[in-house]
Amino acid sequence: MTLAAVLIAPNVPIQLQQLPAPVVERGSITIRTLYSEVCGTDVHLLRGKLAGVPYPIIPGHFSVGEVVEVGGAVKDIDGQRIQIGSIVTFLDVHETCNSCWYCLVAKTSTRCPERKVYGVTYSAEEGLLGGWSELIYLKPGVKVLTLPQEVSPERFIAGGCALPTALHAIDRAQIQIGDSVVVQGCGPVGLSAAILALMAGAGRVMIIDKFEARLAVARSFGIDDAITISNELPQHHIERVLDLTQGRGADVTIEATGVPIAVKQGIAMTRDGGRYVIVGHYTNTGEVLLNPHLEINRKHIEIRGTWGIDFSHFYRMLQLLKRDRSRQYDIPWENMISRFYRLDEINQALADVEQGVVLKAAIQPNPQ
Amino acid sequence: MTLAAVLIAPNVPIQLQQLPAPVVERGSITIRTLYSEVCGTDVHLLRGKLAGVPYPIIPGHFSVGEVVEVGGAVKDIDGQRIQIGSIVTFLDVHETCNSCWYCLVAKTSTRCPERKVYGVTYSAEEGLLGGWSELIYLKPGVKVLTLPQEVSPERFIAGGCALPTALHAIDRAQIQIGDSVVVQGCGPVGLSAAILALMAGAGRVMIIDKFEARLAVARSFGIDDAITISNELPQHHIERVLDLTQGRGADVTIEATGVPIAVKQGIAMTRDGGRYVIVGHYTNTGEVLLNPHLEINRKHIEIRGTWGIDFSHFYRMLQLLKRDRSRQYDIPWENMISRFYRLDEINQALADVEQGVVLKAAIQPNPQ
Amino acid sequence: MTLAAVLIAPNVPIQLQQLPAPVVERGSITIRTLYSEVCGTDVHLLRGKLAGVPYPIIPGHFSVGEVVEVGGAVKDIDGQRIQIGSIVTFLDVHETCNSCWYCLVAKTSTRCPERKVYGVTYSAEEGLLGGWSELIYLKPGVKVLTLPQEVSPERFIAGGCALPTALHAIDRAQIQIGDSVVVQGCGPVGLSAAILALMAGAGRVMIIDKFEARLAVARSFGIDDAITISNELPQHHIERVLDLTQGRGADVTIEATGVPIAVKQGIAMTRDGGRYVIVGHYTNTGEVLLNPHLEINRKHIEIRGTWGIDFSHFYRMLQLLKRDRSRQYDIPWENMISRFYRLDEINQALADVEQGVVLKAAIQPNPQ
Amino acid sequence: MTLAAVLIAPNVPIQLQQLPAPVVERGSITIRTLYSEVCGTDVHLLRGKLAGVPYPIIPGHFSVGEVVEVGGAVKDIDGQRIQIGSIVTFLDVHETCNSCWYCLVAKTSTRCPERKVYGVTYSAEEGLLGGWSELIYLKPGVKVLTLPQEVSPERFIAGGCALPTALHAIDRAQIQIGDSVVVQGCGPVGLSAAILALMAGAGRVMIIDKFEARLAVARSFGIDDAITISNELPQHHIERVLDLTQGRGADVTIEATGVPIAVKQGIAMTRDGGRYVIVGHYTNTGEVLLNPHLEINRKHIEIRGTWGIDFSHFYRMLQLLKRDRSRQYDIPWENMISRFYRLDEINQALADVEQGVVLKAAIQPNPQ
Repeated sequence: MTLAAVLIAPNVPIQLQQLPAPVVERGSITIRTLYSEVCGTDVHLLRGKLAGVPYPIIPGHFSVGEVVEVGGAVKDIDGQRIQIGSIVTFLDVHETCNSCWYCLVAKTSTRCPERKVYGVTYSAEEGLLGGWSELIYLKPGVKVLTLPQEVSPERFIAGGCALPTALHAIDRAQIQIGDSVVVQGCGPVGLSAAILALMAGAGRVMIIDKFEARLAVARSFGIDDAITISNELPQHHIERVLDLTQGRGADVTIEATGVPIAVKQGIAMTRDGGRYVIVGHYTNTGEVLLNPHLEINRKHIEIRGTWGIDFSHFYRMLQLLKRDRSRQYDIPWENMISRFYRLDEINQALADVEQGVVLKAAIQPNPQ
Repeated sequence: MTLAAVLIAPNVPIQLQQLPAPVVERGSITIRTLYSEVCGTDVHLLRGKLAGVPYPIIPGHFSVGEVVEVGGAVKDIDGQRIQIGSIVTFLDVHETCNSCWYCLVAKTSTRCPERKVYGVTYSAEEGLLGGWSELIYLKPGVKVLTLPQEVSPERFIAGGCALPTALHAIDRAQIQIGDSVVVQGCGPVGLSAAILALMAGAGRVMIIDKFEARLAVARSFGIDDAITISNELPQHHIERVLDLTQGRGADVTIEATGVPIAVKQGIAMTRDGGRYVIVGHYTNTGEVLLNPHLEINRKHIEIRGTWGIDFSHFYRMLQLLKRDRSRQYDIPWENMISRFYRLDEINQALADVEQGVVLKAAIQPNPQ
Repeated sequence: MTLAAVLIAPNVPIQLQQLPAPVVERGSITIRTLYSEVCGTDVHLLRGKLAGVPYPIIPGHFSVGEVVEVGGAVKDIDGQRIQIGSIVTFLDVHETCNSCWYCLVAKTSTRCPERKVYGVTYSAEEGLLGGWSELIYLKPGVKVLTLPQEVSPERFIAGGCALPTALHAIDRAQIQIGDSVVVQGCGPVGLSAAILALMAGAGRVMIIDKFEARLAVARSFGIDDAITISNELPQHHIERVLDLTQGRGADVTIEATGVPIAVKQGIAMTRDGGRYVIVGHYTNTGEVLLNPHLEINRKHIEIRGTWGIDFSHFYRMLQLLKRDRSRQYDIPWENMISRFYRLDEINQALADVEQGVVLKAAIQPNPQ
Repeated sequence: MTLAAVLIAPNVPIQLQQLPAPVVERGSITIRTLYSEVCGTDVHLLRGKLAGVPYPIIPGHFSVGEVVEVGGAVKDIDGQRIQIGSIVTFLDVHETCNSCWYCLVAKTSTRCPERKVYGVTYSAEEGLLGGWSELIYLKPGVKVLTLPQEVSPERFIAGGCALPTALHAIDRAQIQIGDSVVVQGCGPVGLSAAILALMAGAGRVMIIDKFEARLAVARSFGIDDAITISNELPQHHIERVLDLTQGRGADVTIEATGVPIAVKQGIAMTRDGGRYVIVGHYTNTGEVLLNPHLEINRKHIEIRGTWGIDFSHFYRMLQLLKRDRSRQYDIPWENMISRFYRLDEINQALADVEQGVVLKAAIQPNPQ
């Protein structure tokens, strides 16, 4: 039997259950979970904010583990054969069909109607298909990557699902060397995006949040300006950005808050002809009033939504993490993790993420 | 003396005045106006909706005329020497400095703080610097183009300022061969954009308006689907577009209405991963409620504002108009003009445009 | 038994053989071939110019047929269930893995090492996996499309594999409305590209070939200028293009000849800052001398190779062909076909294509 | 009188001449030269390799100086008034007309027929219009920038004209975070491009040269791999790049050698579907044999020439140089300068650059 954390229904505390260990079929893999992640999506799952979730589920969509069983000769995407003892990760999205209009014509596999997501859209009754479990069962065809030697499991989980999401947003942002960039929100996605903006050659990167503790982490990563939202002066952070950009606004602004009013403020911080990338609105938190003349047409701006990731972002994330640890370019991604939690601390981990007490919470299902 | 139509102040009927004929200096040109245009911007000028207008002004920013005097050897942008009797037009925007950050670094000359616009930001006291006049004075350095033989003055004024504006919007729309395209609004800009979408290879072009008369003109231009907005069924036109696009929405939607709610509706008509181009919001008509999650991020769409035109759009407009008149590709742009007006009918022309009685009104300041 | 044309080995005339009819397995389909195509690649197969071909093969990679047997509930890419009697076509490329670096990270499925091609890389011993046969066996997972009612099988085969190839080249060419475009070579790919350039809004489309008969067909499709290569004046066609483009060269040039020296000439016909798209070099025909300073760097041009097609081009081809047959936009694709051949005339068809006697040869394996 | 270095004619040693000091007219500026640069173009001027040069000339197209006289109220491009004592630089390109097809329609001001270049296309008889002189005369309308406090004149001249040229090449290269990048040639442009590639987020940057001394400088700037061209094993550097890129070749390759055969080698080092940017071919050094099938079409690559710079690259260069000198992102551009030369050492400086003895030579016309 395998111990797993099960979310029975929305707003019910997570329960630990003993579930049957997986039976490996041809092409599949069982891994012993080293780390899994608690992200904002897990809070939404707890609160019942996502549609189409087949409760009960085992949450945890971003994980890394050690291979304990393989069903025959299975290769990872780099063509390496998976071995017992290999440290691997996998893309949570599975079963995109590669034979529908979304996959083949629009080339937006994130909109494929067949796609399933580990830790989100598989029921606990279908197997160990989420990361908050001692073991995870990787079905045949799940896209697996072996961690490079340079990337420890801790470093990987510190990047977490925020890193490929931020990478996708940065691709959409098309930063040119020297551009000024504002990131709204200093959670894992926002901070990752700010770091990536620096890596992409931005001339000045500003990040905005209401929590001082988060901004302190941003400063430790070398972000140029960490700006606090003031309750007393609600326009202060906008004015600060304008001051830092010759009054014009940033070339590129990236939204990573999930707060509707941030969109209006973010456009105000963006220069005429600039780009505004929205990546923080993964759930419905309401509407915002926008003026199409003043805020879009006359500004000649571009607003780009960023939905999900595909395998390329996941793959490139690993390349990023393994970059040489030279003085000049190493990023201490590990510092993103605020705390590690055991399986039996899972409700605490969720509460900490929900209340913003931690920047990133990592689950360690097996004692070490 | 020269007869000109002068707008003394907002909401005051236009008056005809005898003003001094221009004195040509070196590098300048005087033209006898053949046609000038009445566009929506002129209604805004009448109603005092634009900031920074130095009333009294001579309106008319898009005009064509015959050269009656030249100050020495002056060339058009193609390098041809301007001759007495040449039929020429000119870009209304003048005095962009080509030496500021907007002109040189951002390369958005439409945001240059030095720019002036014939018929809009020159006072009548500065000279005959608007098109609703028997003569127009082209200052040294105004960007002049000689009409090609294939393009009659009527054809040119029928394209009017809507055509380069629509061309700019189509560039922003990046239509691929076979794309489905919706245009919201069947005024001159919307209809021009719909025609250009067909020319750009769109697989299906839909246009939406509330006036049946305008849609009838669209049908005469070969637009695939002309869809009426129904007062009784306010969602009907959205549903119609979804029906025509396998339920997904159009690949590209172009807004040419100036109505805030159209933005919300237009996004609803656009497919996931599609593009939404806003070109109709040239003045402030208020705000619209948008949901950043449902309408931008999850849809993974791009929203692009389109502000003004630069010389390249104006130049390419003439190339478009002179295309061979072969069976297959000729567009009867002339049919855009609903009526020609004399200078002394100018208040009627403005009223007709304001009330939507005409698709396009052309002014003919000199009797023929 | 089924009659099929088999290419035993390079340079051996095609033989007709009676082969076992397919046994339909779950998910597969058997079609009775209506038409298949003879294209330049088939001549290369005959001459042994392609590497890795598992002779004997049944050639024919672009075909259309009537469904005679289906292995259970099989859907086409639009989600329609395949019925006995349906008229369908399919993408020749099969078995791209969707789980390698090329498929998932570079997103260039045309470079996937697992891909197989009907009519090219399947042996005749593996089954009826080529179009020059009374029946074709569509393996499970082959990407099938049902022909829309508006598209007759003759219209489809007239587009042939040249049309999606040209569509891919046009996507790479990024034509803006009004651009001048030169196409080098008036074979099926070149002529299709020229027609698509017109559809994409090009201001002037020029096509160049040495065969007058091909250029006559181009003229019948409304191409603006059909220019003959002169043996006596080898620079004449280059000068002609420069004359037609104010001495600057075309905005975009598309190579569809497969002749190395055409690349040098094509660059000479392209304006500074223009684009040069190479789509005609599907086999190795040698080298050309280029001057990196004069022909690439100082010209500030972009040269883009175009390899193969993916499913999206194939899908969009069908959308193109079904466009409304209105006066203004209908393209008589059917006129591309020079002659239909029976299976027992296959060697004649190949000879005619090899000698350039026909523009396009279509095979009709079943008597009608 | 002012001491200036004059190049009388090709292949004649530079002479020092006393020339009349400038008479400042309205809108113009005189600066006392702090530094000017010797670049490869100056060697080409000495050797008579450029067409249309009006010898005698004062070379030196990239310079920085202190303002000694101003003709009235003159502003720099940021809108700051120029003061006596200000440290300024200027774009060497002047007189682009902003009223021709190249400037306005193609938006490639580098091809404007009216453009003139300080130090290259102005005769010494027209005034002190080159940098190898105690004073430089900035005509009215020359585009001037004030050096930010953070950027010393030495740092600026160390960047030199290579830096904006490399910046333009990097823009054309469109590097995505994590891309592998090869730069061919470790002169000032190549090394600058390699450093910018790192700044733009490349995952691995490789640089290739035949001189060990240059590669040592590259290593000191943190370039990942500095690869020597071997005379004995002429394919060695190509194989080395393939080894470092999983056998596929780099995502992006940048040519900065000016050697034709490097183009063939560079394409061989680039992956299928990759980009190849040519920036090193500023003069004609002959042709190279390319195979359009193997090296362009089947590889599905893009080749992009990069001609000249415009003001935006020059402006952004200054932004780059002033970036915060924090631990993580500071680039020691100053280390690019191998040696400073006095005016009377100018022939030595040219010889050193021609022979590749120095990476970058800076001229200091006024004793300090």
